[in-house]
Amino acid sequence: MAKVLVEGSARHVHLSEKDLAILFGSGFRLTKKRDLLQPGEFLSGEKVTLTGPRGSIERVSVLGPLRKVTQAEVSFTDARTLGIEVPVRLSGDVAGSAPVKITGPAGEVELAEGAVAAKRHLHITPADAEAFGVSERKTVSLRVEGVRAMTFDEVSVRISPNFYTEVHLDYDEMNAAGLSGEVYGEIL
Amino acid sequence: MAKVLVEGSARHVHLSEKDLAILFGSGFRLTKKRDLLQPGEFLSGEKVTLTGPRGSIERVSVLGPLRKVTQAEVSFTDARTLGIEVPVRLSGDVAGSAPVKITGPAGEVELAEGAVAAKRHLHITPADAEAFGVSERKTVSLRVEGVRAMTFDEVSVRISPNFYTEVHLDYDEMNAAGLSGEVYGEIL
Repeated sequence: MAKVLVEGSARHVHLSEKDLAILFGSGFRLTKKRDLLQPGEFLSGEKVTLTGPRGSIERVSVLGPLRKVTQAEVSFTDARTLGIEVPVRLSGDVAGSAPVKITGPAGEVELAEGAVAAKRHLHITPADAEAFGVSERKTVSLRVEGVRAMTFDEVSVRISPNFYTEVHLDYDEMNAAGLSGEVYGEIL
Repeated sequence: MAKVLVEGSARHVHLSEKDLAILFGSGFRLTKKRDLLQPGEFLSGEKVTLTGPRGSIERVSVLGPLRKVTQAEVSFTDARTLGIEVPVRLSGDVAGSAPVKITGPAGEVELAEGAVAAKRHLHITPADAEAFGVSERKTVSLRVEGVRAMTFDEVSVRISPNFYTEVHLDYDEMNAAGLSGEVYGEIL
């Protein structure tokens, strides 16, 4: 029984230093609203607007710290609102992904690529990975119970001593399984 | 191998005769835009707005024919937009479900109950049910392949000689599985 925390990951963006300056002004620094479970990661107080050919989504959270490459992680529901076709990718893997415009209070950035739907994944410490019998670059299945019980396959495994052990799903996935709040699943 | 068509069911409402008259005017009749796969069911040309404590969703399709009881079938994503908490229910089972306001061109209806998230279900003919080995009031599992492969449990079985054999999922579920267009799954 490999029980694991399952957390919903709402739409968000990661910004590069250069794009932060364009969107919020030169010298601007992200403010920290609260820490996320993954050590070092935080929800900032900053919001941006995403715009595609069909529509916009306002008040999208910026997560910190800054990254080398700007990216927007949205659900397929969001992608439909925006009018873009997003591939399913792990965070950071944005080559050839969808274009999107990001607007902040000081300016806007037209990303030629960078919009993705997050590939569901398991963050796990090396100790837990050994206990669970899972290895990097593999996929596992996640079983959740309830009125919309289901088994998610194709959950990517990401191992690091800097991680907190948990599964990240997007809100299409959380909703499809009828999950909210603090929930646990089982790694198969 | 029990392959079955899987169709996404977008948010929609079913109206009673009385509520149709309030929303669209006395004597109004639904127009038919196109037939749905389930015999006798159709997408009308009429649209309504749904409103909850947090927000509204415009241009929600009205499906025909008329029903005895008005109901709104929305996704959990929609429910969050509206600010209501919907139970997961089969169509027609609205007792104690969520309140929602429906607005049409001629008036509005405040439903004390009637908003639900659709319980995923398999419409199936008696002949197919026998071939698939499934029976009424049971649930089955649906396996779908792809980059977001998964197995949906708790798929309710509804048998009628008037049905076209297919599974209905809502768009949270379609998106969670990365499905769009004409897709097939396997009944387990």
